[in-house]
Amino acid sequence: MSELVQAIAERALAYVLDPPAGDDPVVALAAPQDLVTVFGEAAGLALADIEEPSGDLALLRAVELVVQHSVHTSHPRFINQNFAGPDPVSVVGDWLGAALNTTGATFEAAPVFTLMESAVLSKLGRLAGYDDGATTEIPILPPGLFCPGGSTATLYALQLARHRRNPDVVTSGSSGERLTLFVSAAGHYAATKSAALLGIGTNAVIKVETDATGAMHVPALAAAVKASKQAGEVPFAVIATSGTTVTSAFDDIQSIADICEREHLWLHIDGCYGGSALFSATYAHLLDGVARSDSFVWNLHKMMGMTQQCTALLVKNPQQLAACFAGKADYLFQPDKLNAEYDSGDRTFQCARRIDVLKLWLSWKHHGDVGFGHRIDHSVLMADHARHRIRSSQGTFVPLVEGNFTNVVFAWIPEADRSIVRDGTELRSQSPELLHRLHSLPARIKAQMQAEGTAMIGFQPVDGLNAFRMLFMNPSVTTDDVDAMLALIDTYGQRVSVAT
Amino acid sequence: MSELVQAIAERALAYVLDPPAGDDPVVALAAPQDLVTVFGEAAGLALADIEEPSGDLALLRAVELVVQHSVHTSHPRFINQNFAGPDPVSVVGDWLGAALNTTGATFEAAPVFTLMESAVLSKLGRLAGYDDGATTEIPILPPGLFCPGGSTATLYALQLARHRRNPDVVTSGSSGERLTLFVSAAGHYAATKSAALLGIGTNAVIKVETDATGAMHVPALAAAVKASKQAGEVPFAVIATSGTTVTSAFDDIQSIADICEREHLWLHIDGCYGGSALFSATYAHLLDGVARSDSFVWNLHKMMGMTQQCTALLVKNPQQLAACFAGKADYLFQPDKLNAEYDSGDRTFQCARRIDVLKLWLSWKHHGDVGFGHRIDHSVLMADHARHRIRSSQGTFVPLVEGNFTNVVFAWIPEADRSIVRDGTELRSQSPELLHRLHSLPARIKAQMQAEGTAMIGFQPVDGLNAFRMLFMNPSVTTDDVDAMLALIDTYGQRVSVAT
Repeated sequence: MSELVQAIAERALAYVLDPPAGDDPVVALAAPQDLVTVFGEAAGLALADIEEPSGDLALLRAVELVVQHSVHTSHPRFINQNFAGPDPVSVVGDWLGAALNTTGATFEAAPVFTLMESAVLSKLGRLAGYDDGATTEIPILPPGLFCPGGSTATLYALQLARHRRNPDVVTSGSSGERLTLFVSAAGHYAATKSAALLGIGTNAVIKVETDATGAMHVPALAAAVKASKQAGEVPFAVIATSGTTVTSAFDDIQSIADICEREHLWLHIDGCYGGSALFSATYAHLLDGVARSDSFVWNLHKMMGMTQQCTALLVKNPQQLAACFAGKADYLFQPDKLNAEYDSGDRTFQCARRIDVLKLWLSWKHHGDVGFGHRIDHSVLMADHARHRIRSSQGTFVPLVEGNFTNVVFAWIPEADRSIVRDGTELRSQSPELLHRLHSLPARIKAQMQAEGTAMIGFQPVDGLNAFRMLFMNPSVTTDDVDAMLALIDTYGQRVSVAT
Repeated sequence: MSELVQAIAERALAYVLDPPAGDDPVVALAAPQDLVTVFGEAAGLALADIEEPSGDLALLRAVELVVQHSVHTSHPRFINQNFAGPDPVSVVGDWLGAALNTTGATFEAAPVFTLMESAVLSKLGRLAGYDDGATTEIPILPPGLFCPGGSTATLYALQLARHRRNPDVVTSGSSGERLTLFVSAAGHYAATKSAALLGIGTNAVIKVETDATGAMHVPALAAAVKASKQAGEVPFAVIATSGTTVTSAFDDIQSIADICEREHLWLHIDGCYGGSALFSATYAHLLDGVARSDSFVWNLHKMMGMTQQCTALLVKNPQQLAACFAGKADYLFQPDKLNAEYDSGDRTFQCARRIDVLKLWLSWKHHGDVGFGHRIDHSVLMADHARHRIRSSQGTFVPLVEGNFTNVVFAWIPEADRSIVRDGTELRSQSPELLHRLHSLPARIKAQMQAEGTAMIGFQPVDGLNAFRMLFMNPSVTTDDVDAMLALIDTYGQRVSVAT
């Protein structure tokens, strides 16, 4: 087995040290049935009713196929999603954690990692202004938790919000009050998914309208809270989004906090994407007021390039965690065990928990605050370059949202239509036929791009019209990559327009 | 950065290829303050308010300290928890997945892994008897989900149970019915934690008494369901445990399923630990009747040695998943995208999701069904050996539970007390002074063991009396390790008894 293990490890390391770049394909597109066919030459994808052991050669061939047919998310032309460009130090930090394979529930089984979590959560808390001078750099009770992703952290935060209003929810369940919570229409669907799972119901999630940039319209929030109370409902929480999924818009936390304080609402910050702006002296102001929130979720696996997953949920009142989540399993959290006061397992929902902190700790120690800040600044620089290119494209591209952070939302306009559509504001008044044609283009352009493997870019509806979204977080992206992406869209756009 | 990355990777690989064993320490015990001190010589554990980048030498020294002070869970004398002995193929499969760093939500971003999930879930479903001839080996809609751990899978399963009873829960929230669910007193605390999070409340979890082995007393379940209905409550689900945490007891699924069918209750199997018995021709019968359940959670990171985490939630009716969990985010799950029908993200709660399938797929392909079965059989063989040694120890050790699977629960008896306590059944009738003394011993013995680093073993209260638990899943454990563990307990026991 050792030779197989070593060969797989070396293949993975070679990938990390010399990842696909430049003219290497971003993806080798294959349909499901094609993948089944190619794996048939190695270890087949399916598992038979009686699965015989595969030999090392077949497995190593399968490993090559896995690499070949996976999407190369570290490639600078993978500008497709809100993660890209894993930090190599994070990758191997993840590996070391997997090699040591333990769980984060107890100090006993994870002594070093328990302290690292405390150190990192303390520092993240200080960046968010959650420290009130009462914490040390490695507190026994850190101001938060590591969670398996942003949706789960949002779920926990909303349970904390409900628990503050009604501590009996833990033992007695929903009180029967018609709770409501508020999030912008551009906020993440974790809010509605969480409301369903909590037994609050998706109808209780009131979507507040946004302005043209995608940020919450705060007077609309005030009106929505008032209307909900007048309808006999019980508002209990507001989610302010710091970095929306499509446009990377930042809600005005200070103004929202004013409303929350007046109305006694829990303020949760969804900083899954944009929380990392706090690392940058230039962009930290986008989260002005975050210290006034009650909870704050921050995905380090998005902008900061940690491997999937690395999510911190910060909380203003860490004492509440055990009150809300403790299961008090006597087989695990014995008070007569050594250093049991450090155990994190009874402060969260999970029991066994993968070690997500080591990779972040190593990466942070390596890059320092300055390196983390640079990653943010570079990303916005690339977005600014893209915005400049789009504005000076003489109508080839039109911006659909005026952004100021990492996301750039735009349309490609066929040459014949450029005299009609000169900028994004004119789009809405066009004929249904033209809008239908423009709506269909991104999917067709992207399909061409995937088929040739030259790049990957995301698209999604913006006010009902499919639009491209470039978003930047990979430090390997250069202005040449941005220019190349736009040129590719133009090339494929012409091709599919001619084909129509 | 490349040199640092390579050095960390090589350190991790050296650990995997030649893990601590034999007389190597299982743990180098250090108090929190000691760890802070030793890391102070490398890159300090804390993160300063202005954290400067650490040099490679300091980081590599820190990596050594991480390894040195972590618990060596692959060591055959780590018999402490319900995971141990990570499979090296799984470890490097995990590494390759981290190197390729993508998320499992969409086929577009995870083409190979989406199909692998389908293949593995299909095979697991067939092992559980969930196939009804309608599935292929790689179905578009597989019979389940990958989840970040067993507690989360239980949470999802209970939401599915509630949703079947009341589909409006997704939109409208809790109906106001006083729902109740049933689990044995030896069942996992994920049931109560989930009830709290779902807004059902921990009071709704009715703990059913167990027999002397730790298995649910089925007539007590029938009586509890009846009593709950008479109290005006609405029973909706039963959790049958296959492999309890402390004694690895298996509830009688067939008899419980009879009750569930008669009472129209959702039957969820908590096979987090013991579900893997299905891999063994000899022990699969312990889950007789599992095909009659509605959902089944199975942690492959426990007995099967996958790295943290690798959890499958199997469901009888996969169509329900989207109905219960879909968030329909239009920025991600566009119907006009290529192969969108394979996207798993709208069937589960999470959005971005770490790839946990690759390591399992590689390990299963390498070992085959026969290798997976052998891991189970070997584990029970070691437990049988331990039971034999304990029974023939002339009173040094007394068994506290009659087990027949991987867990062995026992007490060490000081020499002076052996004439009084000849077997576990006599323990309960002893004087409070003796019981108090026996209760205090495991923590003190374990502290000695940890201080010398020679081994690690778990203990927990059994009917109020702290007892040792050995449990086996690491294929590297030999009968010599079992004998050595017992000899160490005896040695430290004598030492702490003299010291009293």
